[in-house]
Formats: sequence, structure tokens, C-alpha cells
Amino acid sequence: MSLDFHGVFPPMITPFKENGEVDDEAFVENVERWNSSSLAGVLVLGSNSETAYLTEEEKLKLIELTVHTAGKGRVLLAGTGVESTRETIRLTNKAAALGIHAALVLTPCYYSDHMSDAALIQHFTRIADASDIPILIYNVPKFTHINVGVNVLKVLSQHPNIIGMKDSAGNVQQVASNMMNVSPRFQILVGNAAVWMPVLPLGIRAGVLALANCVPDLCAEIQSLYEHNEVGKARTLYLRLLPVNHAVTASYGIAGLKYVCDLLGYRGGCVRSPLLPLTEKAKEELRGILRTAELL
Amino acid sequence: MSLDFHGVFPPMITPFKENGEVDDEAFVENVERWNSSSLAGVLVLGSNSETAYLTEEEKLKLIELTVHTAGKGRVLLAGTGVESTRETIRLTNKAAALGIHAALVLTPCYYSDHMSDAALIQHFTRIADASDIPILIYNVPKFTHINVGVNVLKVLSQHPNIIGMKDSAGNVQQVASNMMNVSPRFQILVGNAAVWMPVLPLGIRAGVLALANCVPDLCAEIQSLYEHNEVGKARTLYLRLLPVNHAVTASYGIAGLKYVCDLLGYRGGCVRSPLLPLTEKAKEELRGILRTAELL
Amino acid sequence: MSLDFHGVFPPMITPFKENGEVDDEAFVENVERWNSSSLAGVLVLGSNSETAYLTEEEKLKLIELTVHTAGKGRVLLAGTGVESTRETIRLTNKAAALGIHAALVLTPCYYSDHMSDAALIQHFTRIADASDIPILIYNVPKFTHINVGVNVLKVLSQHPNIIGMKDSAGNVQQVASNMMNVSPRFQILVGNAAVWMPVLPLGIRAGVLALANCVPDLCAEIQSLYEHNEVGKARTLYLRLLPVNHAVTASYGIAGLKYVCDLLGYRGGCVRSPLLPLTEKAKEELRGILRTAELL
Amino acid sequence: MSLDFHGVFPPMITPFKENGEVDDEAFVENVERWNSSSLAGVLVLGSNSETAYLTEEEKLKLIELTVHTAGKGRVLLAGTGVESTRETIRLTNKAAALGIHAALVLTPCYYSDHMSDAALIQHFTRIADASDIPILIYNVPKFTHINVGVNVLKVLSQHPNIIGMKDSAGNVQQVASNMMNVSPRFQILVGNAAVWMPVLPLGIRAGVLALANCVPDLCAEIQSLYEHNEVGKARTLYLRLLPVNHAVTASYGIAGLKYVCDLLGYRGGCVRSPLLPLTEKAKEELRGILRTAELL
Repeated sequence: MSLDFHGVFPPMITPFKENGEVDDEAFVENVERWNSSSLAGVLVLGSNSETAYLTEEEKLKLIELTVHTAGKGRVLLAGTGVESTRETIRLTNKAAALGIHAALVLTPCYYSDHMSDAALIQHFTRIADASDIPILIYNVPKFTHINVGVNVLKVLSQHPNIIGMKDSAGNVQQVASNMMNVSPRFQILVGNAAVWMPVLPLGIRAGVLALANCVPDLCAEIQSLYEHNEVGKARTLYLRLLPVNHAVTASYGIAGLKYVCDLLGYRGGCVRSPLLPLTEKAKEELRGILRTAELL
Repeated sequence: MSLDFHGVFPPMITPFKENGEVDDEAFVENVERWNSSSLAGVLVLGSNSETAYLTEEEKLKLIELTVHTAGKGRVLLAGTGVESTRETIRLTNKAAALGIHAALVLTPCYYSDHMSDAALIQHFTRIADASDIPILIYNVPKFTHINVGVNVLKVLSQHPNIIGMKDSAGNVQQVASNMMNVSPRFQILVGNAAVWMPVLPLGIRAGVLALANCVPDLCAEIQSLYEHNEVGKARTLYLRLLPVNHAVTASYGIAGLKYVCDLLGYRGGCVRSPLLPLTEKAKEELRGILRTAELL
Repeated sequence: MSLDFHGVFPPMITPFKENGEVDDEAFVENVERWNSSSLAGVLVLGSNSETAYLTEEEKLKLIELTVHTAGKGRVLLAGTGVESTRETIRLTNKAAALGIHAALVLTPCYYSDHMSDAALIQHFTRIADASDIPILIYNVPKFTHINVGVNVLKVLSQHPNIIGMKDSAGNVQQVASNMMNVSPRFQILVGNAAVWMPVLPLGIRAGVLALANCVPDLCAEIQSLYEHNEVGKARTLYLRLLPVNHAVTASYGIAGLKYVCDLLGYRGGCVRSPLLPLTEKAKEELRGILRTAELL
Repeated sequence: MSLDFHGVFPPMITPFKENGEVDDEAFVENVERWNSSSLAGVLVLGSNSETAYLTEEEKLKLIELTVHTAGKGRVLLAGTGVESTRETIRLTNKAAALGIHAALVLTPCYYSDHMSDAALIQHFTRIADASDIPILIYNVPKFTHINVGVNVLKVLSQHPNIIGMKDSAGNVQQVASNMMNVSPRFQILVGNAAVWMPVLPLGIRAGVLALANCVPDLCAEIQSLYEHNEVGKARTLYLRLLPVNHAVTASYGIAGLKYVCDLLGYRGGCVRSPLLPLTEKAKEELRGILRTAELL
């Protein structure tokens, strides 16, 4: 299967019950609803899935549910990166065996000062060599405090089993510069709705957008409008969604995203500690932001 | 005079002689050559002018030369911001008296921890109140380690004598977010060629671009192509210039920019200490970058 | 058992075999050798143990080996912090059941922007409430990009089951300020040999020092000299060890520390990927640093 | 005159009148009062003097007033660093001609990315070569966002006319490391009362302390107690002053320092815009901090 990324993917939230357990039923309901949206596929176990708080058993269960529920023809991605190279390989191949199409591999980051270019190259090369499915590099400096530089990318983009990168740095000039330095077959997906529309003129074709959890069709519509030469309309829609995106990422994070999901007909559910639930004041502010954006 | 910013401005370099003195003659030659380019105007005393190294006497002389040499119909901008509010007012009004159309006022930054929103609002408001010409805020976190936030901008953009901001942060999502929060009459100019093409779909109409010192017409052409619905061609030209821009800003700074000016028929001249002249190796690398971009 | 921290603890390295497996035998040999040194106790599963790369099974095995091998009277600490509150509680109580005296709990850090004071307070309070053994907060901004502020500490230091903090920030003024804001029973241990001697005049009585893996007695001697009013000798020894400490932490990290352990009679072993083995050049440089410090 | 720095120096505040003019009379009164304190000398035109807001004329006047008023036997320092090498030389020699003993030269910082080791070495070497008085490097990363690294220091500390460095980084391990890498004749003065007591065991003998503006004798007493083997008393006094120091630097900055000076019998006066005057709430908080420290 040759993977061509074109369109929008939600990095799916993981709904938790009040008692902290994963709410499988709510998760499945969300996937079913996303099946009826204009999405290119889904990502399970991304940052917005609170993956850092999941046990391996929970991770594998969520992968299974995703594979069994997601619509035919959707591209299925799973985040399988952990700190160690060997564990990442093990988990990636478990995901492959369960039916995932490509793995999203987070940069290791705990010993950030020693994650040199050479260390990152060794890590991703070993994983790509051993993985039964293609991998995508996952660059998210906001969480990892590491940025995949152009020198690393030049090397890794040559590996036949590394097919792209999800770049959540939100840095448009970096996206442009990276595109200049990788082969055309290497696909860059942006991971940040705040730059979704500005990167389209650069030739970017796919986005993994937290915002797509709650308004998947509108995220897809920005791209569709742009591709049909309706730049003005694309911009208007993008600017309208921008404050919502800011609220469900930077300001209120996953708790905010889940609350907005709840409001818009999805099942957000609880966050896991140490993340805190939203205050009533925050909820009110979020409802105001949704009303301003004409989503409520 | 109502100022409408549309097009490209070079933040003009200041050529120095070997002995460290300003080379007035070379400066005038450059301005004359820019007169024949598709530029909307010029900026004297920006960051690329090594303004931090100029005495007040030298600054005023450069303003005079600019006013006397620049072509009719060009918008003339001068950087007049220093650390103290009172000195900035004094210098701004001297620039106004000499014929400058609008002043670019740098955020004060030495006591960065205490440059709160309130402090910035007081500073710019007092200057705008007292200035004989309109002012533009100059946001350049790379040098000042201060970023003009949206709350400051909401307030300052209401002031009738503050007509816009040159934003050199290079952050496209910030540009988009700012546009949502200011009145339509408030004009945002970008100060970074690395984002020049990606901000055009957002509705940005002007740029003050270091790169415009050496390739003014190509910078202007990106915008012109974009505005004539030649997005593909605009992108191609933008991506072609991107490595050159990186070289004359991030990698080699003003010394690099001046050398490229020298190579392309302008008079770059020396930098002032503590800036260092380029090594031969750096010069060779720059020539290679220009050749790759088909500029040499 | 009331825990009084006085003296030096090594955050024990985890020797790996060439094939990447934990070398249990080498680990036990090290513990036995530390038993004969002037150490107050040991820490298993700290940052220098490459804990981020260990499975839970491996972690529990290392705890067991530590409890069975460490000398009588030694204080036994284990790092049990992971990202989620519930998993941290589970692991802490497993460590308690195996015989560990107190748990060192790392600040969660993946969603760093949302690890507010309130989130940290909730996290540590829940853990301390549920833990069968006392806990120590582990503050290491170099790895987590989070710093436990004085407001968090004021609250948490009131909890009867939170007995102290290992502060590896290396910021002496923060240590002094924290001491002013916690009750006398709350014990601050420093986690950085680079400040080991300067904090002694402040009243600090214990350190968990990477350097103590390879030169435990010399680390202990700095304190002993200081406490016997031999400040000049303490300083001389401290300054002599400073470049060695820099080499086995900042410059070469765990790979450097392990190599120096090998050279000084301990069993360092391999690091786990993505950490890279040392180059021959780095090894040579380390030998030079050891010779200058008269340790080789 | 061979300069031996031993003791405490205030980086003298510059009192301004309500109308923004320098209050020469108040400045002279302060110097006269410091003449009766246990100070080793004074620094005019440091960061706490709001030097960034002074014209050259004002700077020279303050130097003159300092030279004429300061007590016999006091070491007189003046900050003469501006961004350009040539202007710094000019100002340094004017200060020398007026009777200053040594010049404190700030690291240039506007083009921070290009202030490489080589650039800093060239800058300070040229100034030292041309200066009629000895110079001290002034390292204050909090304001300049530049840190003088050990490689720069190794070179510059060899220059016969560079006699030391005022290090305001507040980083004790850096102080220790620097001491290991410079010749014994090179003197390191700390510029931060928050580390004043912890650096004394390292052999540091002098401090330029903002706090010494308002409580000069207590700052000197910390050192005197320490040198008379009263470490416990030195620590107690240091810890007592720590919150006051934090308030007049980090929290409230120069406006806070000036208000505390006013309260303790000195003449603080106004700050210059863009610095903001204190709010009433801030003043109340400061009075509380002083009462807790038994200074009010």
C-alpha cells in the first residue's frame, strides 16, 4: 500500500470515565461519527490522546478499536514512539500487526541535551529498518523541547521506510525550508491548525489537527476551498476558526478540546490526572468563543 | 498624507568605510539605484542599518540623505526608537522635521522583565501623542527579546497616530491572530522575507525585507505574481530566494547581506565593530548560495 | 522509620550489555562496591539510571536487586514518577512493598504548558496521600523543562508524607529561597555536584550526585571537610572535581559517566539507544580530564 | 594604581525629578551618605542607574558628580559600554579623564546571534588596548541575553588591561568554573546579592549589589561575618535580606529599589519612562517585606 496523505486527520482524543478508566464505548462512538466526516483518516495515540498517561495495554486496546471501527479507505495512523529505540520498535510492530497503516514516531526527548543529530538519526533509522510498516517522524517541540533540524531531515528523508513527518512546530518558514531539502516523495503533514491555511500555498497537502476532533468538516473545507481557488473564502473560514483552535490547544489544552467536543456532539469525557478538569469560568469562556465563531 | 503601505521596502544598509566612518557617497548611490526598482519606499535606520552603532549626528545625516535622494512618490520611513520615551520623541520629531513620512519605533527592551503590557502601552502612547508624524510599532523579538502581544496591540491600534506595525517575529500564526484583533485601518507589515509569500494569502500587503536591499525587484515580484493569481510561480520564486534570505539574515547577518549587495552591484561596504567582517570561507559559501539561486 | 538525609547518594547507573539487556550482575557488583564507601544510601531509578528507557519489569527487578544488595543502614530511594498520577501511585507502592524507604517522584512534564501550580499540587498530593512510603519531589528542569516554584513548595511541604525535594536545578539562590519558605522538617537535597560545596554554608545536608557513582568518597569528603571547618580544603577538592563533574553530566552525559565508572573500577557498561556510545575522541578527552584531576 | 576589589559597591541609582530630569542634588546627597558606609567604592552608570535612558551629557555629569563627591580611598567605577566599539572607547576615555579608576564595559548585545566568541574577544580587546584605565567585563545575561563563556574569558583574562569581570548571571557554578579558568590576578565580582553569601566560600571578594544602594552596611556585614568565621551569622543575615533583594530586583526592579531607598533615608526619586512608577499595592507589599526583614 502506497500512502498518499491528502486531507485532514484528527489526532483522536481518548475519553476517560469519571473513575479514570478509558471509556471504550465513547471512543468508538466518536470514531463512528468521524467516519461520516470528510476526513482522510485518523491518528490514534497522538499527543491529544493523552498517550503519555496510557499503559501499553490501554494503547493496544485503542489501536484495536480504531482498526475495527474506522471506515474503509481511511488511512490509519498510530503514535508508537516512546523514549527507547527498542521499545518503540516493539510497539510499532504490535501496531502493524493490528492493522495500522503507518506509525507516527515521536522524537525521544528526556535527555534532550544529548539528542544530537546523530542520536536522532540512529534512533529513527533503527526503527525504520525494523518496522513492518512505514513511519512518519513526529516533531512537536512544544512538548519535547527538541526540533528536528534540516540536517537530520536530509538524511532521514532518504530512508525508504520513512515516508514523511508530522511537523507540529507551527513554524511556516521551517515548513518551507524543509520542503526544499527533502525528496518530493517525502510528505510533510502539519500538526497545527493555526498554520493550516498559510501552508497550503506552499504545497502542503495534509494536516493532523487537534481542531479536527470537534469540527472535522470545517477543517477539511479550508483545504477544499483553497484548492478550488476560493482563497478569500478559505481565509475567512480559517480566521473564524483561529480563536477556537487557540482555545482548544494553547489556552485550555486537552481539557478544553474535550469540552468543546462534548458541546459539539462528540464524547469528550474526562482528562486524566495530572491534567486538571476545566473550571466553570473556563467553560463559560469556551462557550463564548464558540458562539463568536458561530459554532454554538 | 494618508499612508497606504503596499509593496516592498528595503531596511537600508549603512555602508561603512574601512576606517569605520559612514560612507555617505556609497549610501547615496544605493538609494539612487533603488529608485529605479519596484519598491514602495525605503526605511532608513532599521536594524539592518546598524543603527545601534550610529551616533545621533550620523543618524540625522542619513535621514537627510534619504529624504534628498529617494524618488518622488516613495514612502519614507525612519527608525527612531531608542530606549527612553523622551529621547524617542525628540528623535522622531527631528526626523519629521527633515521630511520623513512615518517613524518606526522599536520596543524598548533593556529592562525586558519590566517591559510589561502597561509599560509598552504607556511608551508608545506618549510617543504617538507627541509625534508630528504617524508611527509604526517595530516588533523584532529576535533582537529585543520582547514580543508585542495581542493585548498591547488591541489598545495601541486604537490610537489615531499609530498606523501599523512592522512585525519581524516571523510567526505566521501571530500575524493572522493580530489581523483578527486590530481595526482594518491598522496596517501590518512583515519584516521577514522567510514568511513573505505565506502571509500574502492572509491579506498582508507590505514587507520591509532585508533581502530587498540586494534583490528588490524579485521581492516585489513575489507579491505581484501572487496578486495576479500566479500562486505557483510566486511559490517557486519564494522558495528559490529562501536560502539566500537565510544566508543574509540568520547565518551571516548584516556582514553577509553587505557582501551580497557588493556582489549584486550595490555598495555594501564594511560593518562596524563589534560585528565581524566575513571570512573567506563564508564569502565562498555565499557565492555558492547565490549561484544555486541563479543570482550570480 | 524517620528519614534523616545527611550525606551523599549516588543516582545509580544501570549497566547494559552489548545486546541492550540490563546487566544485573554488573549492577550488583557496583552496589557491593558502594557498600564500602562513605555513602548515606543509594537511589535506584533516577535520571542517571536511564529510567526513561526501562520497562516496568526491569524497574522492579532493579529495585529488588538494590534492596537485597545495599548495605544495612543505608537509606534506599527509588525513582517512581511517571507521567500519570495513577501509574505513579501504583509503581510507588510496588517499590514500597519491595522495601524501598522513600520514593523520588519526578514532576510530570509532557504537557508542560498545562502543568500549572494547581496541577502539580494535585499530582503530588494524590500520590503522597496514597503512598505507603514517604515521598520526595524530584525537580530537574534540565530534563523536564518544568521548575517547581516556591508557591507549589509552600503547599506541598506541609503534607506529612512529603518529606523533601531533590532539587537538581543547580540554582543556589533558588535553594536559599526555598529553604526560607518550607518548614524545618522539610529536607532539600541537591542533585548537582556543581553546587555541592556552595550550598553547604546554606545548611544543606545531603546530595544525590551523579559524580558519586564514580568518586563517592571524594564527594562525601567535601562535606566532611566543610563540616570540620576545613573550608579551604573543601573548596580545593570541590574545584578539583568540578571539571570531572561537568564532563560526566553536561558534556558527555550518562555515556561519559559510565566510561569514567569503567575507568575507576566500577562497571559502567553500555548505554541504551537512542543514547550514543562515546567516540574514541571523547574517551581520550575524558581520560585527560581525569588525569588533570589526579584520578587516573 | 593597582586595583584590589574587596568589599561591596552599590551600582548607584539615578534619582529623577517628576519632570524627568536628573536630580543632581539628590544624587549627591546619596553619594555623601554612602561615604559614611562600609563600602569599598561606588559604580556610576550601571544597569541600576537607568543608564540606557541617559544621554551622553547626563552620563558625563553623573561621572563628574561622583568623582567630586565620593570619599577618598573609594574605588570609582563607571559603566561605559555602549553597542559600538568605537563609541565605547570614546566614552571610556572621557570617564578616565574625569577621574574614574576603572570602566565597566557591558557586552554588546543588539545583534545577539552574531555576538560570537570572536566578536566579543575583538570588542573587548580593542577597548582594552585603547583605554586609559583598566576595564572590567560586565556580564549580565538577564538584560543582554548574552553570556560571556569560559572560552572568551580564558582569552580576555590574559589582557593586561582587563582586570576582572562583574558577573551578574547569578550562577554559582559558573562563578566556580570561571575561577578555575582565569589567572589569579583576574578578579571576579558578583553582581547579584542573591548569591553574595554562597560565593564567599569560593574565594570571591567583592560584589556590586543593587541591594547595597539601600542597605550598604548589611551587605558589607555578610562578608565581614563570613571572613571572621561567623558562617552561621552570615547565613542568617543573608537569608534575612534575600526577600528584600528579590523585591528590589526581580519583582519590582528599579522602581522598587528607589522606593525602598526613599523609605530607608536615601533619595530614590522617580524612574524614567518607559519604566513605570510603582502602584500603591506594590508599595504596600514592599513595606511589608521590609518590616518582615526588620528594616522598617
